[in-house]
Amino acid sequence: MSAPDLAKAVITGGLGLIGSCLARRLAAGGTQVEVIDAFVSDGGAHAANLASAPGVRIHRRDVQESGSLSGVFAGAAAVFHCAARTGHARSMEHPLEDVAANVAGTVAVLEAVRSHCPRAAVVFTSTRQVYGRAQTMPVDECHPLRPPDINAIGKRAAEDCCLLYHRVHGIPASVLRLSNVYGPGLRVKDAKQMFLGIWLRRALEGLPFAVFGDGQQRRDLIHVDDAAAALIAAASPAAAGRIYNVGHSDPVALSDLANRLVAIAGGSYELIPFPVDRAAIDIGDWATDASAIRNELGWSPRIDLEQGLRATVAYYRTHLAAYVEGAA
Amino acid sequence: MSAPDLAKAVITGGLGLIGSCLARRLAAGGTQVEVIDAFVSDGGAHAANLASAPGVRIHRRDVQESGSLSGVFAGAAAVFHCAARTGHARSMEHPLEDVAANVAGTVAVLEAVRSHCPRAAVVFTSTRQVYGRAQTMPVDECHPLRPPDINAIGKRAAEDCCLLYHRVHGIPASVLRLSNVYGPGLRVKDAKQMFLGIWLRRALEGLPFAVFGDGQQRRDLIHVDDAAAALIAAASPAAAGRIYNVGHSDPVALSDLANRLVAIAGGSYELIPFPVDRAAIDIGDWATDASAIRNELGWSPRIDLEQGLRATVAYYRTHLAAYVEGAA
Repeated sequence: MSAPDLAKAVITGGLGLIGSCLARRLAAGGTQVEVIDAFVSDGGAHAANLASAPGVRIHRRDVQESGSLSGVFAGAAAVFHCAARTGHARSMEHPLEDVAANVAGTVAVLEAVRSHCPRAAVVFTSTRQVYGRAQTMPVDECHPLRPPDINAIGKRAAEDCCLLYHRVHGIPASVLRLSNVYGPGLRVKDAKQMFLGIWLRRALEGLPFAVFGDGQQRRDLIHVDDAAAALIAAASPAAAGRIYNVGHSDPVALSDLANRLVAIAGGSYELIPFPVDRAAIDIGDWATDASAIRNELGWSPRIDLEQGLRATVAYYRTHLAAYVEGAA
Repeated sequence: MSAPDLAKAVITGGLGLIGSCLARRLAAGGTQVEVIDAFVSDGGAHAANLASAPGVRIHRRDVQESGSLSGVFAGAAAVFHCAARTGHARSMEHPLEDVAANVAGTVAVLEAVRSHCPRAAVVFTSTRQVYGRAQTMPVDECHPLRPPDINAIGKRAAEDCCLLYHRVHGIPASVLRLSNVYGPGLRVKDAKQMFLGIWLRRALEGLPFAVFGDGQQRRDLIHVDDAAAALIAAASPAAAGRIYNVGHSDPVALSDLANRLVAIAGGSYELIPFPVDRAAIDIGDWATDASAIRNELGWSPRIDLEQGLRATVAYYRTHLAAYVEGAA
């Protein structure tokens, strides 16, 4: 995989799990990194994620205001658009906020690119949730799209906008459909970013955590370092106008994941029935076919689940307090 | 076709071409009609469209504020959501405004229905533009969706939201994908609503109008009375959760349409090359397969093109000045 050489990059949502990992990695390689983050209190942003990232400039702004940030965008070789409202059940509770952030927010970023850095590669972090329930597995990029919730509807529309700006305006934009991303920097205060967040917290606190249903539903988890590598790979010209799945072909049953976590971190879990609001939008089993990005951009995940879980638990053994207390 | 009996109906965009025709028709049948219209100056709204519609109450508000209009929505048996930014080229020039109005606007209406009249039938006016270029013709509802512009991307997302609220919240929502609607009430000041608008104006003023390309591209036009009848049919319980095409199976070449218009109204036309911005999003030939709504709801168009054009020209012979001058 040949990573593009980026003199300057903009990362929206750069205080979140994926954006901050990417920011640290790019800054370490000499890229001038400009982070735009609204620091939404119940989102993925956390100041601790960029506490030790010299050379990263942070702009505390909503991406819907991107048009006014000409100096931030000017000269960027790549714009990684990670800012988003996440949480599928949450999107059903706050649908207006969700579509404003994810659809209008993406259009605002694209317009800023068009005005201020029209040759920049745009990499958009979408979600495998746009497919809805898997009709066949593993799911490749030709699988029909049946977004099952407001968040997925907005993400799909945002994908369409990115590809439209490529087609009509010539902006080299690409779309990554990520599966469940975890790792150091994950929101662990609660389950608002991902179920594994609250599992981690409770396990480390020695408390039982809840697994919905019978625990047999399978998910493919991807470590944030691998996700960040995929984003960098997607900033290459070869990715322009393309959509790629980013995930593991080897999914894990949630009860198996829960057992592994308990073995590493402690605590215990219990199976509880699906809450009604979650059952209505749950997508069931999942396995990703990520062969397109492997074949075209040379990316594949390098961190296996055991290794990734151990590294994540080790991080939160040291940093749990910072992520559980405080404003965000 | 059995039209549902509606004691009270809300019509968003009720000052526009389709909404106003529907408002007059429902009010004449005894329905209490509440119109919500933001009266956007370069949109389809015109005060003359409801100048003689006793019993129709007009609320000059943006649909994004629907949540605050509890009294307007309470007790409604149907909500016809016609308010939208239209114009495909325009959506590329003002993408932020377009997605805010069409995506967030639709979610706001759905949330208002959910809060204030959860048993109301919701009928959403979408567009055949969501299909993009026809891969096969006539186009039925199974044709792949490839929205070619911001307007179509937003409309498709809004469709998804309507069907999601049906599936998850039990709201009986349906989607109509309309082809080019024309008739009395069409914006004729310019081409911002539809190309036929400016053709009509210039023909009646005895001036030449422009037809893009070679004039051989085909479009299926639908008279607004037929479109309004389709909306009423779609308020029946049988339509809940369904998507229907609404158009003519018998398309007309634009040069043929231009010749017919000149024969009825006067003026002349000239073929000019496609403007660059239009060529980038043009969808080429079109013919609609509307057999689903015919078979399931008993709707089919009753007004043929010759008859519809004559009625429209007759209307604007009397009313042209009102539509060309003034604020909207």
